[in-house]
Amino acid sequence: MSEEESLEEILKNLLASIPEVQSAAVVSIEGLPIASALPPDVDETRIAAMTAAILSLAERAAQEFGKGLFEQVFVRGQNGYVLTMAAGANAVLTISTSKNVKLGLIFLDTKRTCDKIAKFV
Amino acid sequence: MSEEESLEEILKNLLASIPEVQSAAVVSIEGLPIASALPPDVDETRIAAMTAAILSLAERAAQEFGKGLFEQVFVRGQNGYVLTMAAGANAVLTISTSKNVKLGLIFLDTKRTCDKIAKFV
Repeated sequence: MSEEESLEEILKNLLASIPEVQSAAVVSIEGLPIASALPPDVDETRIAAMTAAILSLAERAAQEFGKGLFEQVFVRGQNGYVLTMAAGANAVLTISTSKNVKLGLIFLDTKRTCDKIAKFV
Repeated sequence: MSEEESLEEILKNLLASIPEVQSAAVVSIEGLPIASALPPDVDETRIAAMTAAILSLAERAAQEFGKGLFEQVFVRGQNGYVLTMAAGANAVLTISTSKNVKLGLIFLDTKRTCDKIAKFV
């Protein structure tokens, strides 16, 4: 089994275990796609580039306010959430969810997923 | 009592009611400072500009993932949180907190604060 398949399996398992998670992508800290489980209408390259941009600003914000190393950023829109979090030192996981997700549960499950991803990247 | 004094009172009351909240600033959606309660070593103009940058990216991220209108963005660093949320149509509230804050409580209290701010801006 190749490394890539295994990473995608991790993402698919995350989507399967929490129905409110609609998409998931692992992106390098430079903004390049590593693995993804996205709906057909979502462009992986754009998501990766946007993830890198959000990450860069979140890192600056954490630094500006003396909050230390970046761990997580989440955006809440009227119809749901976008979460980006560190998955090891070289990659981040970005997921999107519907509005009715339980945030405590999603933080717990994505933390576990990031720990698994960190072993690959 | 001037409008400005009242906005700053709202921010000071937020800081007084939750000890984990370390700073608070109301910023126009163009990135200009409106009112703030910041530690002496934090520059209001930089915080305002960074808030506008985060807001702009968060709005794009929400749109890209079909999450509708921006409501809130939060950044978790190793030492605490930075939260930015809509306060009416023309302004946002940015706060920073220490690590040990209860997120459920802070979301509730900042929502109330944003409702108050929305009447001024």
